[in-house]
Amino acid sequence: MPPIAFSRSGARPPPYTHLFPITPVKTLTVGLGDRAYPIHIGEGLLDQAALFDAGIRGRQVMIVTNTSIAPLYLERVQAALARDGRQVDAVVLPDGEEFKTLATLDQVFDALLARRHNRTTTLVALGGGVIGDMTGFAAACYQRGVPFIQVPTTLLSQVDSSVGGKTGVNHPRGKNMIGAFHQPQVVVIDVQTLATLPPREFSAGLAEIIKYGLIRDPQFFAWLEANMDALMAREAAVLVEAIERSCRNKADVVAADEFETGERATLNLGHTFGHAIETGCGYGNWLHGEAVGAGMAMAADLSVRLGWMAEAERARIVALLERAALPVAPPTDGTFTIDGFLSLMQVDKKNIHGKIRLVLLRGIGRCVITDEFAPDMLRATLAAYLGGDA
Amino acid sequence: MPPIAFSRSGARPPPYTHLFPITPVKTLTVGLGDRAYPIHIGEGLLDQAALFDAGIRGRQVMIVTNTSIAPLYLERVQAALARDGRQVDAVVLPDGEEFKTLATLDQVFDALLARRHNRTTTLVALGGGVIGDMTGFAAACYQRGVPFIQVPTTLLSQVDSSVGGKTGVNHPRGKNMIGAFHQPQVVVIDVQTLATLPPREFSAGLAEIIKYGLIRDPQFFAWLEANMDALMAREAAVLVEAIERSCRNKADVVAADEFETGERATLNLGHTFGHAIETGCGYGNWLHGEAVGAGMAMAADLSVRLGWMAEAERARIVALLERAALPVAPPTDGTFTIDGFLSLMQVDKKNIHGKIRLVLLRGIGRCVITDEFAPDMLRATLAAYLGGDA
Repeated sequence: MPPIAFSRSGARPPPYTHLFPITPVKTLTVGLGDRAYPIHIGEGLLDQAALFDAGIRGRQVMIVTNTSIAPLYLERVQAALARDGRQVDAVVLPDGEEFKTLATLDQVFDALLARRHNRTTTLVALGGGVIGDMTGFAAACYQRGVPFIQVPTTLLSQVDSSVGGKTGVNHPRGKNMIGAFHQPQVVVIDVQTLATLPPREFSAGLAEIIKYGLIRDPQFFAWLEANMDALMAREAAVLVEAIERSCRNKADVVAADEFETGERATLNLGHTFGHAIETGCGYGNWLHGEAVGAGMAMAADLSVRLGWMAEAERARIVALLERAALPVAPPTDGTFTIDGFLSLMQVDKKNIHGKIRLVLLRGIGRCVITDEFAPDMLRATLAAYLGGDA
Repeated sequence: MPPIAFSRSGARPPPYTHLFPITPVKTLTVGLGDRAYPIHIGEGLLDQAALFDAGIRGRQVMIVTNTSIAPLYLERVQAALARDGRQVDAVVLPDGEEFKTLATLDQVFDALLARRHNRTTTLVALGGGVIGDMTGFAAACYQRGVPFIQVPTTLLSQVDSSVGGKTGVNHPRGKNMIGAFHQPQVVVIDVQTLATLPPREFSAGLAEIIKYGLIRDPQFFAWLEANMDALMAREAAVLVEAIERSCRNKADVVAADEFETGERATLNLGHTFGHAIETGCGYGNWLHGEAVGAGMAMAADLSVRLGWMAEAERARIVALLERAALPVAPPTDGTFTIDGFLSLMQVDKKNIHGKIRLVLLRGIGRCVITDEFAPDMLRATLAAYLGGDA
């Protein structure tokens, strides 16, 4: 596959922004061979019909959203798109990961067929990661493939699922087991939608943003240190910058490793520790991003113990995570023993032949994927967090 | 998209055939850009493990079949594939177009996950068109895409769905509305499986074979005239030849028109008339191929009335269809009036702006797609078949 290219046109805002004396729109182009698409990031973009128009080819649009998002934004998007005699329909799904199933997907197909959408229709995903994954998959399958537009409304989906083209649903026996690679026509990110995001979900998104700095972009990490207060205050201009830079980093990583054999695995920094926390505490009690936050702190601790990173860098990482209101340690209430935590880490699907494989740090902005570390060092890290003898 | 290429290596049978002193195996390569795959056609291929091996990359195989085919062939295929410590599982679905649904598809996912198939698994479709469509779609979606092998066991699926990559399921509101394009790794066609095919289904497959001769291959049509008795006797060598030539013709058409804008529509010869018959008689009463047979006779009649084809050619077409035990006229029991038949033709999805668009003949082996014909000529054709005033 040809590499993903990206370009940036943030310096020159599109002409329509003169109507809105607010943060300029940044546009990033993610290109995968002959399938390139723009990500527009800005303030108040939900009714900027011109941004959507480039991704709509026919005269039919189906907005897919959920019961939490619909009351907030559906009417605005629908009104912006309903022009030139276009047929704009909507289907409102139940909200929650537990509804990310084939049965819910069928509701989308049912709505499309009931409203007689043909193969020139365009789907619009208005919501977080679950809505994005399901809408993208519905678009991949409806009449063997129709275009779709992503309008991610959570910080996590804005910096994660905007790039990569992964779509799908869960199966009772496993998460994301059924799906397709399907790239959107355009991604429209309106940072105003973050105003209504609950604080824990906002912080969970920040964990992934910090991750990009840690694995490959030390300047971005330093920028986050300088701007974390503004981010936590959800200032539009810094949000736009943080999201754009995160998407750009993800696009670079995915471009370098289309098939997840190498560099793409670095996106899992903190995820093996985090996976153990999420599983051990019961899914849904910790948000994924929260577990990744604690997991990154633990990966930093192990990296220091191995002599691969300076203690001062670990301290910077923990300080930044704390300013993002993220947990920096697993629960110490007796949920985990060292061996229990280790065995949860061992079921991670990245492991090969049962050996624990981790993304660790050589410094801020430099990571390695390795299973070559002294096992007693990992036990020492776990003992430091959980108590007990290593 | 780059064109589909094909090559032919029928002259030199693969080395293993010395074990089987029977019809040599013919191999046709269908190439779609960087995704090329072979179609092997021969006698007794179901246990030729070497033919399958080229399409199996990992150590897990899931055979998908149905309750009618499983008792006949499942054990043989399973035994041939179960070697080198390979894990070979099977899932047996209910038989029938009414089970070509998302719910049945979920049974395949469930079997894959219950038996812990990972993303290196290979699916094997053992059955007719319904099994092929569902298995291909399951393969397209399982863990975002795994390889699959087609083992079509009906004449129709051997000459139709072997080429083109269309997979999918039906929705209560429409046929084939949910699906994907997903090419198989290899297609294995064993003409011995046709021995158990009911006569009506066998003839329905012949209708599609005759169609390839009519739309683009006059030599093949003449060959069919010379060999129809042997075909009806299901002689292996002539079946192999007929299937190979049909697949080759379909590959040529698909190559010339990847996106169904032009030549690919010629594959619908007889289908607009046939669609009206199928719908008017209630789905399931006429087999699709039977309706296409009658439809091709009607298209020939109209072509003669328009002065585009000689009556002698129409007579040859009807004679060949009759030797294939296919109907050459719609029911004349009062099911249809001329206007009723016309309105059923009008809902065909190939029509543009309500004007009936047909594939018609300029001669045997030469067709045109057109909506430019005198409407009263179409009425005259219908009157000739249905009775009544044009």
